[in-house]
Amino acid sequence: MRATIIHGAGDVRIEDVPDPKLQAPTDAVVRVLRSCICGSDLWPYGSLPASAEGQRIGHEFLGVVEETGTDVSGLKAGDVVVAPFVWADNTCDFCREGLQTSCRHGGTWGAGDVDGCQGEAVRVPQAQGTLVKLGVGEDDALLPSLLTLSDVFPTGHHCAVTAGVNPRTTVTVIGDGAVGLSAVLAAKRLGAERIILMGRHTARTDLGREFGATDVVPERGEEGIAKVRDLTGGDGTHTVLECVGLEPAVDTALGVVRDGGTVSRVGAPQYGQVSMDFGTFFRNITLTGGVAPARAYIDELLPDVLDGKIQPGKVFDRTVELEQVPTGYREMADREALKVLVTP
Amino acid sequence: MRATIIHGAGDVRIEDVPDPKLQAPTDAVVRVLRSCICGSDLWPYGSLPASAEGQRIGHEFLGVVEETGTDVSGLKAGDVVVAPFVWADNTCDFCREGLQTSCRHGGTWGAGDVDGCQGEAVRVPQAQGTLVKLGVGEDDALLPSLLTLSDVFPTGHHCAVTAGVNPRTTVTVIGDGAVGLSAVLAAKRLGAERIILMGRHTARTDLGREFGATDVVPERGEEGIAKVRDLTGGDGTHTVLECVGLEPAVDTALGVVRDGGTVSRVGAPQYGQVSMDFGTFFRNITLTGGVAPARAYIDELLPDVLDGKIQPGKVFDRTVELEQVPTGYREMADREALKVLVTP
Repeated sequence: MRATIIHGAGDVRIEDVPDPKLQAPTDAVVRVLRSCICGSDLWPYGSLPASAEGQRIGHEFLGVVEETGTDVSGLKAGDVVVAPFVWADNTCDFCREGLQTSCRHGGTWGAGDVDGCQGEAVRVPQAQGTLVKLGVGEDDALLPSLLTLSDVFPTGHHCAVTAGVNPRTTVTVIGDGAVGLSAVLAAKRLGAERIILMGRHTARTDLGREFGATDVVPERGEEGIAKVRDLTGGDGTHTVLECVGLEPAVDTALGVVRDGGTVSRVGAPQYGQVSMDFGTFFRNITLTGGVAPARAYIDELLPDVLDGKIQPGKVFDRTVELEQVPTGYREMADREALKVLVTP
Repeated sequence: MRATIIHGAGDVRIEDVPDPKLQAPTDAVVRVLRSCICGSDLWPYGSLPASAEGQRIGHEFLGVVEETGTDVSGLKAGDVVVAPFVWADNTCDFCREGLQTSCRHGGTWGAGDVDGCQGEAVRVPQAQGTLVKLGVGEDDALLPSLLTLSDVFPTGHHCAVTAGVNPRTTVTVIGDGAVGLSAVLAAKRLGAERIILMGRHTARTDLGREFGATDVVPERGEEGIAKVRDLTGGDGTHTVLECVGLEPAVDTALGVVRDGGTVSRVGAPQYGQVSMDFGTFFRNITLTGGVAPARAYIDELLPDVLDGKIQPGKVFDRTVELEQVPTGYREMADREALKVLVTP
């Protein structure tokens, strides 16, 4: 089959790879209907050392079950399913606690002999725990929004949940990428009435307003911090959703959070240290978040997507076919596209 | 009156200072019955640049109300009261949220024209909000335990509360100083059944066991982390109470916390940066805690002290008179004393 291989920074190719086959009785093979490119894919796209063999990439997809192992129940060929961006058995103690990203028998896509998801098909380990039936057809108009349940929307939701967003909390979302916009939508869904979006790309912040942002702050750094404080009587917001992953964004987050408040970070942090100095300490700031256990949230979020109450798929502003995935990477890296949907 | 002045590292003196007088209608003047030396006082004792004028020090005391301003109600001369280590109006929005350390009209002892607490008497700003009546006499045997409500016990309690300690969480406490031991006692009081205390001073860890520690790990660094992981099936504990304030202790905390768990830090951090890298991020570790709003907790903790259910005053292993406070500092700095109680 055809699948995406990244050979180094700026070097993504579509190549022939072995067809996926059941290897364990807990596996399934799924034909991909929709996949997409993640902001986090842009980190290796920007910096991966060159290699001849390259590595598989992509961790978001929905598709049609083609075959299931003998230990997989509740799934059959023809089911349309979505997969979270970390696979998991969904039965171990961590999974039962809702932390499928730390599953004792789970792992990440594209690692070892596990397929990446930007390809024609995927062998899914721990299929029964990983895959969620969607109950829609292969050409349903909701597929883009359903695909966001794989990663970007639960990631925004995880950010809002761990930050403690509720109807009584004010919210700052830092970053107008697909994760930031998803965080706005998630915060709105959780009842937040004041959502300040920090971002400077008008097309994106316009979607942010549509998703629920009440204010947009294009300024960055100290100027941005001053602006958010101006908007909140000098105090900052109870919760801050850091959806960029770079150190200046974390510093901004600590600058706009209200005393006693919470900064949650999602995405893929590109820094090692966070400034948690005595001032932050005296203000009782909590730093939380992490990689989103998407699987834990799909059951809760799916009905709202199926009902059309939320349309997280609006973050996709470009669609390419699998063979054009390298173009999709370039467009996202150049900020010509917000998030790229991939069709077969 | 006589009071403690710190003139620089290692240079603490008892000197004559002006008698406290009411300055605002919200003030009270309190004669000090008991004060004490805090682990955090040892930071300036170790590093404060020398100065001829020096500065007042001490932030923990209980005493007898001598005089109250015209706006102070509910307190009268003769009442025995305890003061939290940050004064506050206890009515602003932050105070109502239980974050009196961020009070809009509050402040710290020994700053500006506010008295330090290692002295004969103290002018208490925002007295009605700050002081809590204890309902005991001036020579009550419970005074040492009641004095801990000023700082050290609520600090341990804040650490346990913000970490989310409950009967279902395992706990590691890092540090066998007075704050660490108070954190053990607080965790036990909150129902924790497994409390691992990391500390190497036997007299202190023995008190830790008495307070509720189920395991003691004297090893530090990687060896200590390995030991705690051994004790917890490789996973670490759900909550980690970091009661040291130095960077290696934070690194240990991140090393012994279970995936999805929480590290809470109290005391007075002597570091600026915390390693919150991608590994920590992938494990969904929360970093919380901060300076303890002791005032928020006194009403809840006081009955248990009065009933004798808990005896947090056991952290005092040395008593000095006010004129001997410099000796108390030396003994604490040299680890000859765990925590020094000061009598008039």
